[in-house]
Amino acid sequence: MNYSIIRYILARVLEFAGLFMMLPFLVGVIFGERQCWAYLFVASVSLLAGFLGKQFKPKSKVFFAKEGFVTVSLSWLVLSLVGAVPFVLTGEIPSYVDAVFETVSGLTTTGGTILGDVEHLARCTQFWRLFTHWIGGMGVLVLILAVLPLSGSYNMHLMRAESPGPSVGKLVPKVKNTARILYQIYIAITLLEIVALLIAGLPLYDAATMTFSTVGTGGFGLLNSSAAEYSVAVQTIFMVFMVLCGVSFNIYYLFLVKKPKEVLQSEELRTYLGIIAVSSLLVGFNIREGFAGFGEALFHGAFQVISIMTTTGFSTCDFNLWPAFSRMILFLLMIVGACAGSTGGGLKVSRLVVLAKSVKNEISAVIHPRSIKKMHLDGRVLSEKVIHSIRVYFAIYMGIYLMSVLLISLDNFSFETNASAVMAMFNNIGPGFDMVGPMGNFAAFSNFSKCVLMFDMLAGRLELLPLLVVFSIKTWKK
Amino acid sequence: MNYSIIRYILARVLEFAGLFMMLPFLVGVIFGERQCWAYLFVASVSLLAGFLGKQFKPKSKVFFAKEGFVTVSLSWLVLSLVGAVPFVLTGEIPSYVDAVFETVSGLTTTGGTILGDVEHLARCTQFWRLFTHWIGGMGVLVLILAVLPLSGSYNMHLMRAESPGPSVGKLVPKVKNTARILYQIYIAITLLEIVALLIAGLPLYDAATMTFSTVGTGGFGLLNSSAAEYSVAVQTIFMVFMVLCGVSFNIYYLFLVKKPKEVLQSEELRTYLGIIAVSSLLVGFNIREGFAGFGEALFHGAFQVISIMTTTGFSTCDFNLWPAFSRMILFLLMIVGACAGSTGGGLKVSRLVVLAKSVKNEISAVIHPRSIKKMHLDGRVLSEKVIHSIRVYFAIYMGIYLMSVLLISLDNFSFETNASAVMAMFNNIGPGFDMVGPMGNFAAFSNFSKCVLMFDMLAGRLELLPLLVVFSIKTWKK
Repeated sequence: MNYSIIRYILARVLEFAGLFMMLPFLVGVIFGERQCWAYLFVASVSLLAGFLGKQFKPKSKVFFAKEGFVTVSLSWLVLSLVGAVPFVLTGEIPSYVDAVFETVSGLTTTGGTILGDVEHLARCTQFWRLFTHWIGGMGVLVLILAVLPLSGSYNMHLMRAESPGPSVGKLVPKVKNTARILYQIYIAITLLEIVALLIAGLPLYDAATMTFSTVGTGGFGLLNSSAAEYSVAVQTIFMVFMVLCGVSFNIYYLFLVKKPKEVLQSEELRTYLGIIAVSSLLVGFNIREGFAGFGEALFHGAFQVISIMTTTGFSTCDFNLWPAFSRMILFLLMIVGACAGSTGGGLKVSRLVVLAKSVKNEISAVIHPRSIKKMHLDGRVLSEKVIHSIRVYFAIYMGIYLMSVLLISLDNFSFETNASAVMAMFNNIGPGFDMVGPMGNFAAFSNFSKCVLMFDMLAGRLELLPLLVVFSIKTWKK
Repeated sequence: MNYSIIRYILARVLEFAGLFMMLPFLVGVIFGERQCWAYLFVASVSLLAGFLGKQFKPKSKVFFAKEGFVTVSLSWLVLSLVGAVPFVLTGEIPSYVDAVFETVSGLTTTGGTILGDVEHLARCTQFWRLFTHWIGGMGVLVLILAVLPLSGSYNMHLMRAESPGPSVGKLVPKVKNTARILYQIYIAITLLEIVALLIAGLPLYDAATMTFSTVGTGGFGLLNSSAAEYSVAVQTIFMVFMVLCGVSFNIYYLFLVKKPKEVLQSEELRTYLGIIAVSSLLVGFNIREGFAGFGEALFHGAFQVISIMTTTGFSTCDFNLWPAFSRMILFLLMIVGACAGSTGGGLKVSRLVVLAKSVKNEISAVIHPRSIKKMHLDGRVLSEKVIHSIRVYFAIYMGIYLMSVLLISLDNFSFETNASAVMAMFNNIGPGFDMVGPMGNFAAFSNFSKCVLMFDMLAGRLELLPLLVVFSIKTWKK
């Protein structure tokens, strides 16, 4: 293990954490809130630590996948631990475990909260809460790769460990340029939504913060009622941008370089939009009796479907009260998740497509044992290695899910609470059902359960392997 | 598709169905119950149909895996449809859908019932209900292979389609002899348990019928309270024989041919016993406050753990009232299931072992990318094909599970009811939680949901592929 390079990258992460935290400080200054000093203090300490840590250049440039996974995991851990400190210092979240939970939930774009009332938070604190979604959405190491003059073999390993999806495609030959393009698209979408929300009548502060939450597919909100009190126009803007940010960012790049044919070919995109359409119709039909008309039911059905499938977690009504069939559809969409290479979480649509094809192949092989079939995605042959790793991924995914439910069931809450809480955390969604429904929160869980759920959020965001590598004894053996 | 040979085998299945049904007829005659004529009638019709159907010898001997899967699926369907008729004729289960549900639940050794009160059933009907567990435990086609002078390539295909487990090993070169040995062991265990229960003080009728239910790892009982009212001695006998029948029957063969070393080497057996021991301790500790002492809690914990893990479904107390942690352990054990090649259902311990190793390998590959590791089971190298099919199996398994929960949630029962009902049916266990807990039943579900659950029971018993092949359009295309 190359410790010196890990230390060096962690120092750069601390620097960025410090820079990020200057923003809530400025917001606090503008609104004249005394809580802002907590942000300035932590930002300064973080910047200093980063500055000191990066003074000693790494001795060796040896950097393999193992180092990549460890670096990414530790970066997210450090960012969470540091990002949580201001919440405690301002006194708004007195328990450090709760504060870390809130920060992990923010950075992983989960959006599940331990706060019963978010409307009494200082504006700078709210800004920081929602801004963590924006940081985590595209990833802090991708940002570092885009901005800093790092070079060497580790770029790809870091990118691969932090970016979601079964296979990370470089858009352009250089990792640095790929990271830049991704962030440019991300910033463009962010600005677009802010402008749209301003036009729809939101004040700048609200427009900006809610945009961070939407484009990161996070789910933290400014109001206790999530998105229920906004106008239909604002809710529609949320919907559109949730859908947009659940799409692979590669798609936008293909648009920009004028390859619309490849965009249309994308099976993941078509499946993603298809699932949203079919689920919205099913839910809309199932809940029609609770609304004035089918149109209104369809609107709320679609909003919740999109919010859950993109793993955002906003809500316009308490879907916990919906019939079992609609709740089950939402539960299944939690597993499906968004597209690979988007800011959304979950199993990812493309993994599901490959699994489904895999199953079809297996049945086919029984019926026609002599025909050997290659599996295709978007017209290209899928390598055995990718198929293999997706299947193992699914097994690990279910294993972690079930073990987590077992562990948090020690708190003796209902089966539905436990099953949906882990589902919502692990897939970075936010609200679940029953006690953790859209009107509930995660405060009642024990600290042990909160730690389990934090592990799930991080494992979900980093796509399992990085955290498992860190927790494997073999990694640390000489 | 070779229809003539499928027709021929189905005719033999009908013959056996007729023969089987003569037993409840005889029981009815002995106890002087008028319901027995229903069994004689259906038995006669079935025998006649079988006799007529087998008159035309199959034209071609072409028989591939496809034909094997279709034959086995149709055999089980025919057996269920025919076996359900007496329940309707005696008027004890008026609805034919309910009667088929009860028969499928019996044959697949599930043991979930639609009856609220089983103590008012005629003795011949109870005999038939519990005897279906015995028939389904080892499989009717395995019996046909053992008894009839069939020969040809189809033996292995039939055996493979009906027997549980990721890979069916022939004990001896000839399939016919393998089937015979399996049934000899099965009958020996059956007789052993009957004798044990007689010694423990049960009357012959009770001893025999409850033995059918135990050795088939079924779960239907004679009393509404399942196994709660029996003496500790009888409950202990149930426990011992449930454990024995959850073990691969190959193990007993290895014992008989004096290869105890291979028995001890069996990773599946060791994992199976290990899981039972650890789970019993965890549950016993978790429920200790509801009992007089830790010993009593451990006894009831172990009984329920064994009953669920072997997929039998007996209960000595209402585990639906236990703390969430114990309920969750039972829920997980439902998925694990018994050993491959036993009469139990579930995912099977060996599949789990392979999946776990697969995950370990994947993590290892990240840490040491250059070392390629072969996976071993019981000291032998696992072929890529077996590993591959286990992974796909798991994906199909979860897919069917989740879709089934979605479909039955249309009835709008609780999340826990739906999630555990499908789990209990799919893994051939019997009771679930909440409405379908050990004191509940499946009567309240709609006919549509009952059909979904029947599909799950059959898919679980036949290990997914046979039913999927039957439902695939490709199978029926020329």
